[in-house]
Amino acid sequence: MTDEQTRRDDRAHVFHSWSAQAQIDPPVIVEASGSHVTDDTGRRYLDFSSQLVNVNIGHQHPRMIAAIQEQAARLATIAPAAANDKRSQAARMIAERAPGDLSKVFFTNGGAEANENALRMARVHTGRHKILAAYRSYHGATAGAIALTGEPRRWASEPGMPGVVRFWGPYLYRSSFHAETEEQECERALAHLRDTVAAEGPEHVAAIVLETVVGTNGVIPPPDGYLAGVREICDEHGIVMIADEVMAGFGRCGEWFAIDRWGVVPDLISFAKGVNSGYVPLGGVVISPEIAATFDDRPYPGGLTYSGHPLACASAVASMEIFEDEGILEHVRTLGAETIEPALEKIAAKHPSVGEVRGLGVFWAIELVADRQTREPIPAAAVGAVAAACKERGLWPFVAANRVHVVPPCTTTAAEAEEGLAILDEALAAADAHVTA
Amino acid sequence: MTDEQTRRDDRAHVFHSWSAQAQIDPPVIVEASGSHVTDDTGRRYLDFSSQLVNVNIGHQHPRMIAAIQEQAARLATIAPAAANDKRSQAARMIAERAPGDLSKVFFTNGGAEANENALRMARVHTGRHKILAAYRSYHGATAGAIALTGEPRRWASEPGMPGVVRFWGPYLYRSSFHAETEEQECERALAHLRDTVAAEGPEHVAAIVLETVVGTNGVIPPPDGYLAGVREICDEHGIVMIADEVMAGFGRCGEWFAIDRWGVVPDLISFAKGVNSGYVPLGGVVISPEIAATFDDRPYPGGLTYSGHPLACASAVASMEIFEDEGILEHVRTLGAETIEPALEKIAAKHPSVGEVRGLGVFWAIELVADRQTREPIPAAAVGAVAAACKERGLWPFVAANRVHVVPPCTTTAAEAEEGLAILDEALAAADAHVTA
Ligand SMILES: Cc1ncc(COP(=O)(O)O)c(C=O)c1O
Ligand SMILES: Cc1ncc(COP(=O)(O)O)c(C=O)c1O
Repeated sequence: MTDEQTRRDDRAHVFHSWSAQAQIDPPVIVEASGSHVTDDTGRRYLDFSSQLVNVNIGHQHPRMIAAIQEQAARLATIAPAAANDKRSQAARMIAERAPGDLSKVFFTNGGAEANENALRMARVHTGRHKILAAYRSYHGATAGAIALTGEPRRWASEPGMPGVVRFWGPYLYRSSFHAETEEQECERALAHLRDTVAAEGPEHVAAIVLETVVGTNGVIPPPDGYLAGVREICDEHGIVMIADEVMAGFGRCGEWFAIDRWGVVPDLISFAKGVNSGYVPLGGVVISPEIAATFDDRPYPGGLTYSGHPLACASAVASMEIFEDEGILEHVRTLGAETIEPALEKIAAKHPSVGEVRGLGVFWAIELVADRQTREPIPAAAVGAVAAACKERGLWPFVAANRVHVVPPCTTTAAEAEEGLAILDEALAAADAHVTA
Repeated sequence: MTDEQTRRDDRAHVFHSWSAQAQIDPPVIVEASGSHVTDDTGRRYLDFSSQLVNVNIGHQHPRMIAAIQEQAARLATIAPAAANDKRSQAARMIAERAPGDLSKVFFTNGGAEANENALRMARVHTGRHKILAAYRSYHGATAGAIALTGEPRRWASEPGMPGVVRFWGPYLYRSSFHAETEEQECERALAHLRDTVAAEGPEHVAAIVLETVVGTNGVIPPPDGYLAGVREICDEHGIVMIADEVMAGFGRCGEWFAIDRWGVVPDLISFAKGVNSGYVPLGGVVISPEIAATFDDRPYPGGLTYSGHPLACASAVASMEIFEDEGILEHVRTLGAETIEPALEKIAAKHPSVGEVRGLGVFWAIELVADRQTREPIPAAAVGAVAAACKERGLWPFVAANRVHVVPPCTTTAAEAEEGLAILDEALAAADAHVTA
């Protein structure tokens, strides 16, 4: 197929996610390797998006490719009712890396299905119906996952699955609680959550679900103490704590599970993306022994044709092995602390359009404002201009609302990160031009 | 890993679909090829299940494996926002094979997500909320798909997504309409559907969703005229007709799309399974130009990280090419008409436990009854005994409720089918022993 035919067939036959189909002109990507992707004009881009923040191990990692090829030759697929070596090994390796005593893994194809099953497990386990979920969150686009989602992408799918109650999470830069310090924000966000649980009737609340580090809605790490406080509220009332680590987990924060940064053990963790960098669709739920035991003698009322897909599981096994052999988690922590954070702080000091930079590991946001005093978000046109300036300079950015997220692969070298950050620095001039005060 | 460790890790760490975890002892499957799977004791089974009725092309087809290996080396994954050769080609090839003018494809990871998106498209397109769905149906296990599902697996997930209204489909053997002929059943089922639409307010009905051939709930082909009648009702009221072909499509019925057997063009078709035999998780929705146009200038409010996954799309392309090069659709029609149907009719004549056999292509059910007059379903123990007798003789069966489904890969040879049917014939003695009248 020629690139021209790829483009023509795309326009005629491919229906794209979240898009007005006639208003897009998708770039034809023909190649990818490590931290780079290449389009059909031969233009090479440094990938500061990891695609949808999923290619944590970098593009086309040779050992990953070899593992997929080898497993394809052995056994591509087998029904969920069977036991299979790669399925067993992936589950064991994930359980071994999971916090606390979480021990069983239910595999899905992606993040939405992971959350769907986490909420089902919580409801059946507790016999309760209500789920508390946060504003400023994204949990996926199937009917249950989109009902959990706390941002505008939910609206078109309403009225949706009943039983979801909304709360506000901590976000000091735009505090819902009029807080001025991280400590205050933490304390007040917990008080708000406690009040909401009380007002809903704790004995009716099955689960509290939250992104360990809020992703698409702003890369918002929780203040120290917040997750422990949520754990406490859950323990007090027998509520299941679900940590959505679809984006934050498997390396993005320099940990297998982001929640390890705060030493908290949830009851269920949903994962996807980084577990195998999306080389083969895979997601899942890591389950506590208590919740797993609920389904020892009572059939679990959920499933999917490709649960524990051997090709996907083999790539997850390979990915975890590579992460360890190459010291990728350590690299992420160093890269975040020694390269990205200092560079972003310089950028923040220099550009009047930058309201805040925040993040950890390879998971950062630059929040752009028209006015640093009022913190008024910069207009969409400014963000578009920054994105265009990045692309012109060979950087593939990730933008969302009034933010640029800095989310390169975990395997990005310090030199590549510096190169990308220097381009960002230049590109932000386009945002500065929109600053009104 | 030893087989023993596979088993131990499975029991300790793998959480299985639809199962009471402590009550299962999953077979360790170590190898599969063509129509056979092999367990860790070296025992080889003829696969009359196609796993979950998805391995249509047979196990480990060499060209499929090569295509996956090749694409893995080229480009395993890229974000949905890009254009990509295999994504374009898979979409075009599916659109070319789809009935009528259906022309665009939204890719998902599996069948549940396909139905989730079909129902979202129908709702946004029509601006209406209600969805009519059939009893005796399975549409997947995410919150939207399970709400559509018309069988007991839905119950544990209720109260679920609102807006689903239930109707009864045609099923002459256990007619809801006291019909005695196919024609009567068809006419009365359509009258019932028309009445239900009227009682719900046609202007509030977004879609009617149904399995073209009901799968897991009985392999129930529609009487001639039924699907055309549903199309008529939809046309009359501007209702979207959604055909769930996750199980029936891509070869199972000897057609690319089962609905071609009846010459009807739905507005949306959900697919998965046979599109690439599940070698890589893949599903999707084929979309009419009218519905696609709704999202030309208005963003489609749905998406997923792995929409149009290159590795999955490459395997779908390979599968469609192999089906054509090897004449698999034709083979399925011949195998069904000349080998399976006559053998099942002999079985029905011989075994007092067989109430009815029905199906087409490589999609058949043997309905087992304790009493041919009352049609009382045979007890579960009898079905278990038949399954055990099959396995003892080297046949891997698919059983559901009081039925044995005959659903081998589309590539099963006539000799293999005869061998399997002969085993089934023997095994059914175990059911005959439970006949009470
Ligand atoms: C935190 C979070 N949860 C869930 C999802 C949904 O995952 P998927 O797109 O694989 O369904 C995403 C996707 O971006 C996510 O970021
Ligand atoms: C007709 C039908 N629709 C949808 C599904 C759900 O597909 P998946 O298990 O891939 O989510 C199935 C699965 O068996 C099915 O048979």
